[in-house]
Amino acid sequence: MISLKVNLGERSYPICVGKNLLERSELLTQYIPGNSALIVSNETVAPLYMDKVEASLSDLKYKTLVLPDGEQYKNQETLNSIYDCLMENRFDRNCTLIALGGGVIGDITGFAAASYQRGVHFIQIPTTLLAQVDSSVGGKTGINHPMGKNMIGAFYQPKVVIADTDTLNTLEDRELSAGIAEVIKYGLIRDNEFLDWLEDNMENLLDRDPEALAYAIERSCRNKAEVVAADERESGQRALLNLGHTFGHAIETGMGYGNWLHGEAVASGMVMAARMSLKLGWINQGELDRVIDIIERAHLPVKAPDKITPDRFIELMSVDKKVSDGILKLILFKRIGEAIVTSDYNQNTLIAAIEDSY
Amino acid sequence: MISLKVNLGERSYPICVGKNLLERSELLTQYIPGNSALIVSNETVAPLYMDKVEASLSDLKYKTLVLPDGEQYKNQETLNSIYDCLMENRFDRNCTLIALGGGVIGDITGFAAASYQRGVHFIQIPTTLLAQVDSSVGGKTGINHPMGKNMIGAFYQPKVVIADTDTLNTLEDRELSAGIAEVIKYGLIRDNEFLDWLEDNMENLLDRDPEALAYAIERSCRNKAEVVAADERESGQRALLNLGHTFGHAIETGMGYGNWLHGEAVASGMVMAARMSLKLGWINQGELDRVIDIIERAHLPVKAPDKITPDRFIELMSVDKKVSDGILKLILFKRIGEAIVTSDYNQNTLIAAIEDSY
Repeated sequence: MISLKVNLGERSYPICVGKNLLERSELLTQYIPGNSALIVSNETVAPLYMDKVEASLSDLKYKTLVLPDGEQYKNQETLNSIYDCLMENRFDRNCTLIALGGGVIGDITGFAAASYQRGVHFIQIPTTLLAQVDSSVGGKTGINHPMGKNMIGAFYQPKVVIADTDTLNTLEDRELSAGIAEVIKYGLIRDNEFLDWLEDNMENLLDRDPEALAYAIERSCRNKAEVVAADERESGQRALLNLGHTFGHAIETGMGYGNWLHGEAVASGMVMAARMSLKLGWINQGELDRVIDIIERAHLPVKAPDKITPDRFIELMSVDKKVSDGILKLILFKRIGEAIVTSDYNQNTLIAAIEDSY
Repeated sequence: MISLKVNLGERSYPICVGKNLLERSELLTQYIPGNSALIVSNETVAPLYMDKVEASLSDLKYKTLVLPDGEQYKNQETLNSIYDCLMENRFDRNCTLIALGGGVIGDITGFAAASYQRGVHFIQIPTTLLAQVDSSVGGKTGINHPMGKNMIGAFYQPKVVIADTDTLNTLEDRELSAGIAEVIKYGLIRDNEFLDWLEDNMENLLDRDPEALAYAIERSCRNKAEVVAADERESGQRALLNLGHTFGHAIETGMGYGNWLHGEAVASGMVMAARMSLKLGWINQGELDRVIDIIERAHLPVKAPDKITPDRFIELMSVDKKVSDGILKLILFKRIGEAIVTSDYNQNTLIAAIEDSY
């Protein structure tokens, strides 16, 4: 097992990555301060792994809650079902919420933990590659609003993240690729050496080679932990982690939550950001092609969906959380391996870049 | 104008108390970092003071939202109406939410500010005595769950609290008394000298003598600011501020939100806490009578409502946020002027104290 630390002062916590971690009950129970826990999972993950987590908690008062699976359920109604379960079972302020699942389960359970009784304990057990390399680390929690992704939420850190790589064996190919989108992202924004490694090892990742997966998860988490430790509440460089996300969120909202996977939308969005960077003369055609190539090799989309017109893209992007005083900041490429947060662009350039993306 | 500071490191903020503060636009605008604001108020307060706040904001992009008045609307549905307004008007992460009203408006607007886009700026303009002396200070925000008061929320500090004592002139007598309940609380838990002053000046407060009110507000806020600065997230002594609240929340939930005012329920709850302390031998009959006397003189209830049986009290109190690992901590009197947080009591004593309270 590899253990990394996210350095956030009194809110610091470890990320444990390795095989067979769900069998090690003390790994989980040492991070539960009280005597009660609620495990929140979904219909896909619960049949596979809930019994293992339950076995670890046998000495506690615990309950389980199984939610429907999909981004379209990351909403207020599902959040309320968690609150109702907590209230009906009289969970108190010293309880622990355990998120067992992918990014949706982690985000919604984390926000429930942040807001129930103004904050209870929280543990992440991510079971998808996307959640293991990205969403479970860093404390962003929340739900979608019908008009925009992740618009309601909190920064709230878990006590521990337990990433058992065995859980990736049951992941659908499409979900695996969606996770690889966020892995590629770290290479593109700040880790050239990792990007080189990904170009050499993409087929190993798609074949689920355990060593390749473990390396990619560890390196991704290290990148994320460094960025988050420097800027927990995204007042500056943390925004780099959103490469492709402003375009991607527009795709997710515009296509209807749950139709494109988050990682697929981010993949397409990263290509759009690269096209925009080309238009601005910050990267050249060869660099754009390199971005497109690695994303295509991960079996991810590199084009924008026809259903969303450029005008609709602009409209959807205008509600992004990176809008401040009416100005939308974008994450673009200074060069491959170095992204920047900028509002130094012309609206017509943005429209032209979107038009080139179909 | 008196200005106090709540010392919370980088989250420190001033409380301004005085006459005619709503006319001083720079007092408000200097605490708005961006170029947009949403003023949230209710149907009772908006017709009286909204125009004054709007006049201060004329250079900004601002909107107003008027909610129904009453504790029964401090719920998820009303919270969602704030989110919807923010989304529909494309308020971004640099916007400021201004709560103009009593405790309900402050709590719900504060939680909206804490959770919209994972946190936007927040300003409190409390217009009731209760909000000026208690709920607007200290950063507790939230909404009620059908099964319990304030069960969903966040600790989230405002940029400034502006308490204009002129707004108390339009307050109903019943609301004024409800505010005095929280004023008396500070005397009872930690400020004997203030309790003496209240016994000498209760009629002046009820007559709305401006000097008496200003003194009571300032002294209450000083007490609250000291307690909050020492324990922002209520891991210890901050719980003392909840004297009477566990009993009081049970009354509010049990009677239906909005039937008893919060301050009325707290008043009755403080007498219940005193009765319990008498049963435990911690105070004597003379001290209990002193508690009852000052509360009665404020025209506040000193008995529990018949409608809630002792069994129902126990049931309602079991979901209190001060339950930890199944044990309910109560705030009781060590002596008058010194409250303690304790679980050192017998359940039968609690039941007997409740039975004595009708």
